[in-house]
Amino acid sequence: MRIDVRESVLNRNEALAAENRRVFHRDGVRVLNVLSSPGSGKTALLERTLCELRGEMRMAVVVGDLATENDAMRLRRSGAPAVQITTGDICHLEAQMVARACEQLDLAAIDLLFIENVGNLVCPCSYDLGEDFRVVLLSVTEGEDKPLKYPTMFKSADVVVLTKTDIAEAVGFDRASALDAIRRIAPQATVLEISSRSGAGMDAWYDALRRSCAAQMWGART
Amino acid sequence: MRIDVRESVLNRNEALAAENRRVFHRDGVRVLNVLSSPGSGKTALLERTLCELRGEMRMAVVVGDLATENDAMRLRRSGAPAVQITTGDICHLEAQMVARACEQLDLAAIDLLFIENVGNLVCPCSYDLGEDFRVVLLSVTEGEDKPLKYPTMFKSADVVVLTKTDIAEAVGFDRASALDAIRRIAPQATVLEISSRSGAGMDAWYDALRRSCAAQMWGART
Repeated sequence: MRIDVRESVLNRNEALAAENRRVFHRDGVRVLNVLSSPGSGKTALLERTLCELRGEMRMAVVVGDLATENDAMRLRRSGAPAVQITTGDICHLEAQMVARACEQLDLAAIDLLFIENVGNLVCPCSYDLGEDFRVVLLSVTEGEDKPLKYPTMFKSADVVVLTKTDIAEAVGFDRASALDAIRRIAPQATVLEISSRSGAGMDAWYDALRRSCAAQMWGART
Repeated sequence: MRIDVRESVLNRNEALAAENRRVFHRDGVRVLNVLSSPGSGKTALLERTLCELRGEMRMAVVVGDLATENDAMRLRRSGAPAVQITTGDICHLEAQMVARACEQLDLAAIDLLFIENVGNLVCPCSYDLGEDFRVVLLSVTEGEDKPLKYPTMFKSADVVVLTKTDIAEAVGFDRASALDAIRRIAPQATVLEISSRSGAGMDAWYDALRRSCAAQMWGART
């Protein structure tokens, strides 16, 4: 019974995600679903990206949280449009929420849309939003074995971004062990190492975004 | 339909949690449900606690993760019994899982049982496990506004533990703003600030555990 309902919810979501994807492709928007634990640095990464690539690409963000408009407000300071979805007690974004948020955006005038999901390494994984690529963040403070403990999320990643590398030493981060865990669980993923604070590694992230817009990498989900 | 099923699942969980609570009280075990994002330092806090209070209290841990026995193995090094629950793709612990895990423990020989929940600031909140108290961790790396973004979890806390204070300066942590967010959302909670690595603040945590065992604080859930 419980499984049937979950399946029917997921099937309905799949249909709506396919419709989102059709609209995104029609309007020529490349869409990234950005996922991680709470506090891994999704907003900080997008904040810096929106500021630094502002002259080069037309970007927008749809951002999900249980409560507050904090993240959309932070992101709008870059000048890019940012739509906040507040989910109440729902632990993930669904395709329908994204469709509704996108009504507030002029998709045809956007090259790259970031969907910043609710901070949660489990539930958002099951909900396709119509994205082209999934970006999963892991910060150096979270423990090197997180990919092993949350395998479904990391298996679904097109890109894994290791964040907060500027404090790696301060937290005694074991880089080799983390990279090994990522490669074991997510051998398909491109791995990037960045610090949104110091700027280290951001160029490789930007190159990946440029290539993703040119559809030269990260085989698009269809 | 969806809500009905969720309610029926939660009602069933409530009944099983009440039964857990009856058994815990009968056997004189004080039970703490320990909750946070992935990587906030639940296991590190318990690891140090188990080692340092070992001569004084009889402790055990039930620990939930989607996959791996890593945490139970880490915790067992302290000499305390630790039972791992692997939930598969389930994003939270349920009372029934805890009941089954406790079959592997001699409850009558335990003073204090820690239930380390799945790392998730949303879903575990709705599932009573039969605990006496809820301890919610927030690390200095996660962003000062997390209580505002995940209010349901923090509203349910008896204790909020601010963790990783040894790296507060390295991550530019704004303590006043975090404490303000905690007090706004969780005025009921005792707030502790600790570093499991340096040991700072651990004495206050141990005192709180002693008082909780003596039932002199944190009014028990009944």
